[in-house]
Amino acid sequence: MFGVTILGNNSAIPTLDRYPTAQIVTCNDQLLLIDCGEGTQLQIAKYRIKRGKLRYIFISHLHGDHYFGLIGLLNTLNLMGRVDPLSIYAPPELEQIIQIQMECSGTALRYEINFVPLMPGYTGVILEDKDLSVSCFPTQHRISCFGFSVELRKKKRKLIPDQAKAYEVPAAYYGKLQEGADYLRKDGLLVKNDWVTIPPEKGKRYVYCADTIYDVNLLPYLQDADVIYHETTYLHELEGRAAERFHSTSVQAASLAAAAHAKRLLIGHFSSMYTELDPFLEQTRPIFPNTDIAEEGVTFLV
Amino acid sequence: MFGVTILGNNSAIPTLDRYPTAQIVTCNDQLLLIDCGEGTQLQIAKYRIKRGKLRYIFISHLHGDHYFGLIGLLNTLNLMGRVDPLSIYAPPELEQIIQIQMECSGTALRYEINFVPLMPGYTGVILEDKDLSVSCFPTQHRISCFGFSVELRKKKRKLIPDQAKAYEVPAAYYGKLQEGADYLRKDGLLVKNDWVTIPPEKGKRYVYCADTIYDVNLLPYLQDADVIYHETTYLHELEGRAAERFHSTSVQAASLAAAAHAKRLLIGHFSSMYTELDPFLEQTRPIFPNTDIAEEGVTFLV
Repeated sequence: MFGVTILGNNSAIPTLDRYPTAQIVTCNDQLLLIDCGEGTQLQIAKYRIKRGKLRYIFISHLHGDHYFGLIGLLNTLNLMGRVDPLSIYAPPELEQIIQIQMECSGTALRYEINFVPLMPGYTGVILEDKDLSVSCFPTQHRISCFGFSVELRKKKRKLIPDQAKAYEVPAAYYGKLQEGADYLRKDGLLVKNDWVTIPPEKGKRYVYCADTIYDVNLLPYLQDADVIYHETTYLHELEGRAAERFHSTSVQAASLAAAAHAKRLLIGHFSSMYTELDPFLEQTRPIFPNTDIAEEGVTFLV
Repeated sequence: MFGVTILGNNSAIPTLDRYPTAQIVTCNDQLLLIDCGEGTQLQIAKYRIKRGKLRYIFISHLHGDHYFGLIGLLNTLNLMGRVDPLSIYAPPELEQIIQIQMECSGTALRYEINFVPLMPGYTGVILEDKDLSVSCFPTQHRISCFGFSVELRKKKRKLIPDQAKAYEVPAAYYGKLQEGADYLRKDGLLVKNDWVTIPPEKGKRYVYCADTIYDVNLLPYLQDADVIYHETTYLHELEGRAAERFHSTSVQAASLAAAAHAKRLLIGHFSSMYTELDPFLEQTRPIFPNTDIAEEGVTFLV
């Protein structure tokens, strides 16, 4: 299973019905948390996310609505008895912010935090774990900020059954073929793997664009993605304000998704000034029909 | 009006129906916030607390369930346009925790924070403002921790109407008498204020005991208080665990309130293990009948 569960979709000021940004990405049996606004631990409890399966946390940038909930979550995991290590990928300053608060409270965590600093502008793969691969890329915001591309690869090569039969490979060995093994026949012929299989299908890809001004330089990271999350802090009418504050509008997010030939677009990070979110869909769908509100508690399959 | 509004009554791990510790103390037209667990800004919005009237914040100690919501609140006040200064009374390390997070996010607050460090063990008056007086005292917890005593003094002296009449002070001057003025009669006699008034009635006092092990040394601060808040992390059965963790039980809180001849006791900081709170009342009320659960959203008059 590859999906993203929305825990919060609001921007800076939380409202009574919209939490600040946080998302859980489920990659088979592993959970990733992307951003962690205040109250994320409550949303994790509310939506019955299996905390124990959380292995990786990614913080896009150090504006509070993206990380103020992290310190509380780390403490709660400790109080609940976590011992499994946890990796945090974030701007380097976050490490000190965590450390100083642990020290002041006299807290010695029972689990290890593997802190991976994301230096300003860094682009590239930051995590490979089994069939999971995560890379980051910089977005243009008021402070150093990163988007994340999460890819769940297909591990198994695809069998060509006719070929396998023609080379007389026993069916019991097909599993090994899919893992890339050759087959040595009793008559001494080595059946090479690529005679009877083709490479794995392309993996699926979820791209989280964090906070960003409208920026066509993001296109290479978004190209052909299965699901894109792009912020839409403002409606089209406030394009000027969006640019001033290094945020994006509905129309800009949809245009980028269309240009990238993405399959689906999720929009979020709505300004607290908006009580109704339908106008966001009214402005995005004419440009990119397969758009949805990143609604809290909803899981979108990638 | 002098009252305390409960925003959270839970201990370390927030639950879906109980927020961590935070209380608003209303002293006529001034609001004080005591402790600020994660999500306090949401509770402030939910219970329609007038943020603009908040002048003073008191943080008892640097365990996360008492301050993780502060940084988010400070940011939100800024985003909402606050310009009035705000005073924060807290252990000294909190200043750096705030500063580093403001720096990382590139935030320049539009209002001034007057940070008053509470050094370990400090006892005494920390704030005098009009008819309001706040003092702090150390409690015994795992790290440096403070209780706060909030007193709302009666400003006006009490008139003795018969005496005022006997000295022929005109009724229009009674207001001045209550403020402490003497009265010069036309015949030259100076009517001294204390001939016609008596000192103001004693003020009312709310004492917040923060987190603490059962400690009779707190009694001098609690003596004759109108309302006491005392933590009851555990029921009586877990007295041993309470002591180990420098917390208190229901029976201990009630005993202390009784010994102090307090008028009313509020209990809170319940361990997340408890889903039902009635047993806390069943254990406290036989010892101190005027006990109430510090229930979220409820305002208790002092």
